[in-house]
Amino acid sequence: MSKGALALLIHGGTDNWSPERWTARFRAVCHDRPILLPPEAKRDPAKVHYAAVWKPSPGDLACFPNLKVIFNLGAGVDALMADKTLPNVPLVRVAVGDLTGRMTEYVVLHVLMHHRQELYLRDQQRSKRWVPKFQWPASAISVGIMGLGTLGADAADVLGRIGFRVAGWSRSKKQVDGVACFHGDGQLDAFLRRTAILVCLLPLTSETRHILNRDLFAKLKRDGPLGAPVLINAGRGGLQNEADILGCLDDGTLGAASLDVFAQEPLPVDSPFWTHPKVVLTPHNAADTDPDEISKYVARQIENFEAGGVLDNVVDRARGY
Amino acid sequence: MSKGALALLIHGGTDNWSPERWTARFRAVCHDRPILLPPEAKRDPAKVHYAAVWKPSPGDLACFPNLKVIFNLGAGVDALMADKTLPNVPLVRVAVGDLTGRMTEYVVLHVLMHHRQELYLRDQQRSKRWVPKFQWPASAISVGIMGLGTLGADAADVLGRIGFRVAGWSRSKKQVDGVACFHGDGQLDAFLRRTAILVCLLPLTSETRHILNRDLFAKLKRDGPLGAPVLINAGRGGLQNEADILGCLDDGTLGAASLDVFAQEPLPVDSPFWTHPKVVLTPHNAADTDPDEISKYVARQIENFEAGGVLDNVVDRARGY
Repeated sequence: MSKGALALLIHGGTDNWSPERWTARFRAVCHDRPILLPPEAKRDPAKVHYAAVWKPSPGDLACFPNLKVIFNLGAGVDALMADKTLPNVPLVRVAVGDLTGRMTEYVVLHVLMHHRQELYLRDQQRSKRWVPKFQWPASAISVGIMGLGTLGADAADVLGRIGFRVAGWSRSKKQVDGVACFHGDGQLDAFLRRTAILVCLLPLTSETRHILNRDLFAKLKRDGPLGAPVLINAGRGGLQNEADILGCLDDGTLGAASLDVFAQEPLPVDSPFWTHPKVVLTPHNAADTDPDEISKYVARQIENFEAGGVLDNVVDRARGY
Repeated sequence: MSKGALALLIHGGTDNWSPERWTARFRAVCHDRPILLPPEAKRDPAKVHYAAVWKPSPGDLACFPNLKVIFNLGAGVDALMADKTLPNVPLVRVAVGDLTGRMTEYVVLHVLMHHRQELYLRDQQRSKRWVPKFQWPASAISVGIMGLGTLGADAADVLGRIGFRVAGWSRSKKQVDGVACFHGDGQLDAFLRRTAILVCLLPLTSETRHILNRDLFAKLKRDGPLGAPVLINAGRGGLQNEADILGCLDDGTLGAASLDVFAQEPLPVDSPFWTHPKVVLTPHNAADTDPDEISKYVARQIENFEAGGVLDNVVDRARGY
């Protein structure tokens, strides 16, 4: 009897998400397991035991009667969880070192850009002005990370090594070496009060939607060397109230923002974020997923699962991540 | 008998170098030792046993007959060493954690900016274009650091933690954990061949003047994901041949450059560096010195010296750093 097939359901936007690219990688690491793209997969749906997906359409997964596990190929399962017809089988999220490392690169880069006054320095270069301003050391700056999972803990570690005063906030209690850990609604205000640069890596759930709003920004630390606080969001666009961000940048409640994610992506061409002088914008590329790493991760999990082992990184459906 | 006086001889350019600021810090940490500024110091020069200096005029130090130690308040002693009348007493260079940390911040920021395609992404933002390009991980990029002293070794450590493949080159043989170490003229080409992002933290000496020139740039690695290699110079302007940098940026021998130092500072307003689209320019502020930290460092060294101890970080005059 042949191995259960893996269906690849990918709706990407960028080059990185061409189904051909992913198919080739999965074929290379799954040996004699059939790797099927949608038309073929749906022709004989009973053969499909596994699905590896990125932004499938609602209902796409409901047609496979023998589905055993769903693997989500990118970070964040919020889009999947919104599908009311999602089969009730284990849903596994990506947790590969490669993705973690890329997110840490993004977070460290953007924290350093704001700390080292890059918006000011680029403006000075454009104006041909040689006017250095005093540069305080990292040890004078408090960075706060919302979301202390694998990604948040790794970014916190590197930021601490560079010298920043790092705190983290998570829904449930966590302990991370060298990080001042806060948790739950009760400790959110204390976390915000000591945070001058806020990094958001939260999952998007019904509880976190629009958590980045004016009320929250107004509680951030503003008496440090940076003055007005800075927002860095590399989680999901749904976490942020975009009208509040713009209003707070304009009235000085926020000093600057780095945004990798938006309520609507690609960001519409008439969005004021494009030209805002205090916004550093990236096209949702903070942490690209690498087909090489992730296909190996999925193949390894399937082999382990078929040998009677336990799946790693299964999403808690009640919690939503 | 009162303590030997410390003369403060400071010729700065920026706010950070106001003599008043430094005098206040030295008075706070040197207890009952007289801290004298130039007119007063020169009125009774025999009293002066120590000098703490930043860019003094040639001849400034020759007038103190009882001088025992000279402390240089910033990084790099090249300007001092050019003074033929410099008294032949120990010359101590700054080595404080604060300065090291700031330089590491600068190096990590600029390596990440080029690695993460910031020049492209800012251009895209200005053009309101949402076109992510594939972002390779840090592990695909070879960074090479010229100069493996305290500063180079610390930057190498953080870059390695982020995932870059880090090598270093120094005049004499060094060993740094996690860093592929090259040394001397004989190993320079091998070091350059594997380096896609070149970071220069060398001291300026007669041997290193204009070491950053077309011959050297042409040997850098160009077959990696970055394509044309990147130069980051936070050492001294005298290390670089500026006409070669501009020519190499324009003909593609170099892909981009971050420059914190220049042959003439402040950079003249007609310099083509200001407006070059591939240049990220900062006004020699990679590693500001903090009067707090450095005055404590000098006070500690003087106390130790007067108690019969050995001075740390004395410059080797033959070597020039």
